[in-house]
Amino acid sequence: MENVISYITQNKNRYINELKEYLSIPSISTLSSHKKDMKRCADYVVKQLKNAGLKKVKTYPTAGNPLVYGEWLGAPGKPTVLIYGHYDVQPVDPIKLWKTPPFEATIKGDQIYARGANDNKGQNFVHIKSVEAYFKTIGKLPVNVKFLIEGEEEIGSKNLEKFLKEQKSLLKCDAVMISDTSLYAEGIPTISYGLRGLCYMEIELTGPNRDLHSGSFGGSVANPINELAKLISKLVDDKGKITIPNFYKDVQKMPKKERELIKSLKFSDKAFAKELDVKELKGEEGYNTLERLWARPTLDCNGIIGGFTEEGAKTVLPSKASAKISMRLVPDQDPEIIAKEFAKYVKSIAPKSVKINVKALHGGYPVVVSLDDKAIRAAAVATSKAFGKKTVFTREGGSIPIVVDFKKQLNAPVILMGLGLDTDDIHSPNEHFSLKNFERGIYSSAYFFNEFAK
Amino acid sequence: MENVISYITQNKNRYINELKEYLSIPSISTLSSHKKDMKRCADYVVKQLKNAGLKKVKTYPTAGNPLVYGEWLGAPGKPTVLIYGHYDVQPVDPIKLWKTPPFEATIKGDQIYARGANDNKGQNFVHIKSVEAYFKTIGKLPVNVKFLIEGEEEIGSKNLEKFLKEQKSLLKCDAVMISDTSLYAEGIPTISYGLRGLCYMEIELTGPNRDLHSGSFGGSVANPINELAKLISKLVDDKGKITIPNFYKDVQKMPKKERELIKSLKFSDKAFAKELDVKELKGEEGYNTLERLWARPTLDCNGIIGGFTEEGAKTVLPSKASAKISMRLVPDQDPEIIAKEFAKYVKSIAPKSVKINVKALHGGYPVVVSLDDKAIRAAAVATSKAFGKKTVFTREGGSIPIVVDFKKQLNAPVILMGLGLDTDDIHSPNEHFSLKNFERGIYSSAYFFNEFAK
Repeated sequence: MENVISYITQNKNRYINELKEYLSIPSISTLSSHKKDMKRCADYVVKQLKNAGLKKVKTYPTAGNPLVYGEWLGAPGKPTVLIYGHYDVQPVDPIKLWKTPPFEATIKGDQIYARGANDNKGQNFVHIKSVEAYFKTIGKLPVNVKFLIEGEEEIGSKNLEKFLKEQKSLLKCDAVMISDTSLYAEGIPTISYGLRGLCYMEIELTGPNRDLHSGSFGGSVANPINELAKLISKLVDDKGKITIPNFYKDVQKMPKKERELIKSLKFSDKAFAKELDVKELKGEEGYNTLERLWARPTLDCNGIIGGFTEEGAKTVLPSKASAKISMRLVPDQDPEIIAKEFAKYVKSIAPKSVKINVKALHGGYPVVVSLDDKAIRAAAVATSKAFGKKTVFTREGGSIPIVVDFKKQLNAPVILMGLGLDTDDIHSPNEHFSLKNFERGIYSSAYFFNEFAK
Repeated sequence: MENVISYITQNKNRYINELKEYLSIPSISTLSSHKKDMKRCADYVVKQLKNAGLKKVKTYPTAGNPLVYGEWLGAPGKPTVLIYGHYDVQPVDPIKLWKTPPFEATIKGDQIYARGANDNKGQNFVHIKSVEAYFKTIGKLPVNVKFLIEGEEEIGSKNLEKFLKEQKSLLKCDAVMISDTSLYAEGIPTISYGLRGLCYMEIELTGPNRDLHSGSFGGSVANPINELAKLISKLVDDKGKITIPNFYKDVQKMPKKERELIKSLKFSDKAFAKELDVKELKGEEGYNTLERLWARPTLDCNGIIGGFTEEGAKTVLPSKASAKISMRLVPDQDPEIIAKEFAKYVKSIAPKSVKINVKALHGGYPVVVSLDDKAIRAAAVATSKAFGKKTVFTREGGSIPIVVDFKKQLNAPVILMGLGLDTDDIHSPNEHFSLKNFERGIYSSAYFFNEFAK
């Protein structure tokens, strides 16, 4: 093990240079103009996996961008780890807000700036590099590994979903390792064990059949914006409880142990409010901030539009107004049931004076992994060794829909060993990743293979 | 008088052709690219007034578009009528919804389609043509007339306001005649005697200092869209009463006589709802539809925007949300006082978890003219003769801010002799004007001069 670790330390600078190569490929999956870059990036991952010492490395074509698969199964009797990551990245708009070119990785201090630096190239690269360290030193790995690096995470992973269903035996494993989340705080090794689900809805209200003059008609007919506002105001009560019938029916209560675990993290509401520049935080009564973020469902308007929205005044009484409303879900809420309850409820409270149209746009299941699982415990030991601190367990407020598919299709625990920070500006201009955490990530991966083999 | 009337009948087709010329000039005051068209249109009005037989006709330059002024004061001892209108028009967007080109007037049946056909070229043209009929037949008018046709009504009449203050003696008159409103219904001669005022506000709420991921942050911090919806929902109660303190303090009760006048109009809620395609109407309890439209104040959201409003789903918890909210006012509400009360109230009900910014964008005083005024009575007789039916008296739900200025600066009654219909699509694609009402309007104007001289 010592050899492996010192190899990583000695080769750190080369690893960073290779990461820069990886980051130089503008693999933006959303934009069809980058089709060739997707192929080029997949090929780069293939080359890296081969260089690392993996034997069977290939790309699988899909209806979209190719999947990269590589394996080494030379440890019979030992567990198999499937390492998942994605080589596609988000678009770079607004480009003018970038201080350095998004596809020319730039190092400032101990940060590397580039699109994909954190999400997810930097994070998946650590596992490739730890594998390399094993092969280049002791010539083998303590566990069997399978890599699955996709090119469509930022556009919904539809083809990966299909692949998971079709290739269950190819992908068979004892644990899925994903580094695509965040550390609880800088320097704190973190394993995430839960993700919220999502139910994303859209409501459109129609009042009069055309836009009217608010002078000539105002006061005589329902205004769809006013009615939409009333409707939205009725979805969450003064205590922060969502009023949709049966909404909380399937919500798992947080075990006392978990609430204590959260308390031990000593989250600072004051610092959080300051960072967001709000006078006070707001959420469901009876829960603290981390509980609200990780273990309680929410309802947020993600967008609203109606009438005249340019500068100045226009006296219109609009025909239509619409809102996008999403709910974050927690185990065991089912996004399909919630979508139905939501639609039923908003239709029931909409006044007769407007027509209502409700659409479900998008959904995803919540997930929680058992902290008692062998793989999770091994990962916690590994990150603790790499960071030199006790590992904390967190849940994430967001959703990674593919995690649920991995768990369901492969029937294996999913380890969320995040290495990023919430302040890394993923999906935003000036995305960056700490090179310190990049290095710690490679150590964490190496230690994990060793721990999981025990 | 007979000669005048038959001249109008004989020259009707030429009048329509001249109206087409007037409508062919794209005098859109909002768009600076049409600056030259404004000048061209003012010159066209000058030419028409001169052709009609007026003596002193000229344009007055302003900081914006020129004002056209013309007068004939050859009836000493007789009253003076100031005829107001505007040659500027609204923009034509969305152009693709126009079935015929907006600046090539097209006649279909007895309707003429063009931007400005009703608002206001078609309506102010009737007075120019009735004056022409007098001069071309009996060579003089029974009253003194002054024309004031401006080019900035659609952008707030700021320069006219100034002109009114500065040129009180030039504009001195015994009545102001404005044809810029609507008939109560097709074929029904109508004099409007009241207009609502306006108080147009904008609210912006700011939650967190940046757009957040609704997964990572949802549930922990106030969402400005949800808070804005709550705030808006608190402005009007379940009975349709506006909840702003002191809002109704200065509202004049409708006299019993006026309520009976309204009842006599036999307004059909059913037909109105059907025309707007709504299942039921909605408004303040205790008042019927016409009372709600003409004599009661209202509060309407004219626009709302926040977060992600494109197609599809984006899980954003936005930093900001804003709404435009306007109130229609009735005598004796004061838009400046109402703006202050509104701002005070919304600030008082906004939660601490968001910052609130309130702006007053625009205001106008309500106005009611006495039905007993000599000028009003003369106009009612005139329209009754022209239409062959009893004239009805209505109020309008909308505002024509300049009416208040005319009343105040010139201390003269304002006659609102509207010739349009609410279904004429003014400010919308396919604006049109009935040629029948155009003709009746010219007769009405001619009869009015005669009646008012008595």
